[in-house]
Amino acid sequence: MSLLAFDNPVFRYYAIAATLMILKMMSQGWITVFRMIKVKGGYRYAEDAQRSPANPHPSPEQLLQNEYVERSRRMHGNDVENIPLFLATGLLYVCTAPSNVTALSVFTIYVLSRFAHFYVVLTARPHEVRAALWTVGSIAIYFMAGMVLWTALRS
Amino acid sequence: MSLLAFDNPVFRYYAIAATLMILKMMSQGWITVFRMIKVKGGYRYAEDAQRSPANPHPSPEQLLQNEYVERSRRMHGNDVENIPLFLATGLLYVCTAPSNVTALSVFTIYVLSRFAHFYVVLTARPHEVRAALWTVGSIAIYFMAGMVLWTALRS
Amino acid sequence: MSLLAFDNPVFRYYAIAATLMILKMMSQGWITVFRMIKVKGGYRYAEDAQRSPANPHPSPEQLLQNEYVERSRRMHGNDVENIPLFLATGLLYVCTAPSNVTALSVFTIYVLSRFAHFYVVLTARPHEVRAALWTVGSIAIYFMAGMVLWTALRS
Repeated sequence: MSLLAFDNPVFRYYAIAATLMILKMMSQGWITVFRMIKVKGGYRYAEDAQRSPANPHPSPEQLLQNEYVERSRRMHGNDVENIPLFLATGLLYVCTAPSNVTALSVFTIYVLSRFAHFYVVLTARPHEVRAALWTVGSIAIYFMAGMVLWTALRS
Repeated sequence: MSLLAFDNPVFRYYAIAATLMILKMMSQGWITVFRMIKVKGGYRYAEDAQRSPANPHPSPEQLLQNEYVERSRRMHGNDVENIPLFLATGLLYVCTAPSNVTALSVFTIYVLSRFAHFYVVLTARPHEVRAALWTVGSIAIYFMAGMVLWTALRS
Repeated sequence: MSLLAFDNPVFRYYAIAATLMILKMMSQGWITVFRMIKVKGGYRYAEDAQRSPANPHPSPEQLLQNEYVERSRRMHGNDVENIPLFLATGLLYVCTAPSNVTALSVFTIYVLSRFAHFYVVLTARPHEVRAALWTVGSIAIYFMAGMVLWTALRS
């Protein structure tokens, strides 16, 4: 029996956590799109400031940086630095056959810390809160990576 | 029998699609390198504008942003936001044991949408075409993620 | 028997290499944090230049780009473009059942090339060295992706 299958509860927990993070990260792109449409700017490609069905009144200022749009891009950048590591580390961690309770705890902590991080950055809360939440997710990654390394080295 | 093995046709389709996307994303780095060599600029590290065998006539202007190079960097950035999600979601989707036809269709649609997206950004086509192609890839990710979540929740 | 299990030596090598790369990439975020604390600047969010327990003497200049911090961010960006590809390609490569020696060699070459790349960028060594090391890692990815594609097409 493979551990990477839906009859393994730990794999099911992982699949749910991974999917939530994938949906979150994919949706950040849509938030950037929504913000660009809302402010009609923050574009980065010269062709986006040309007249087109979606942009009937173009202007060169549409290519200027727009902080409202940039915030969403930075949030996406933060996802890009963190979520693929969770997806990869989590999969390997499932292969270490952790207990259901430990696995469910670490996946839950990670997912909650990332959704809270999303909310805190979106609403521009104080830096300390953002840093603390990122630290929680970071520790979850280190923990799982440590367990994988430990399992590999003593196998 | 594990679903994550080459005797599973769906895994083979996934492996081909994943590999094409990996080769595409890795090659975007080479396109950026090629463009920096061609314009002898668009560098971002101070040490790159120092005299060296590869840069016999350095100048501080080599560190200025160059749109020809930046376009390739933004394309790479778009890969970074999208392709790792396809790689992870696709692997989990294989574990849901989808039908051969459905899996082949969604993988093919994703890969074609990304290659078309590449061409459209490279040649600076109108924004609407780029947005439509990115949307197709995005829907493919949402579809696979939805199937994974559904399978995990009812297992 | 699944190939993606710790009783497969090639999977163990992969798990060790992958974990080292995950720890490396996660730690690049901490290096950026450390550098921002050290120079008390290089921040990108307006709320970070507000008075807070961690920033008792804020100033608008803290939001200016700081090259010491940016270098770490670019290193992180390079990780983001490369390491997720290694994690995904390596896992698929394990499924091709390569020989222990070949797999160990390609994983070792990749990991060493990335750690050397890290050192060379951190210490601002000449561009040629950085480019050569990135090329080595890039070839390792192409090699593994080629083996996966070849295995999938003839299975």
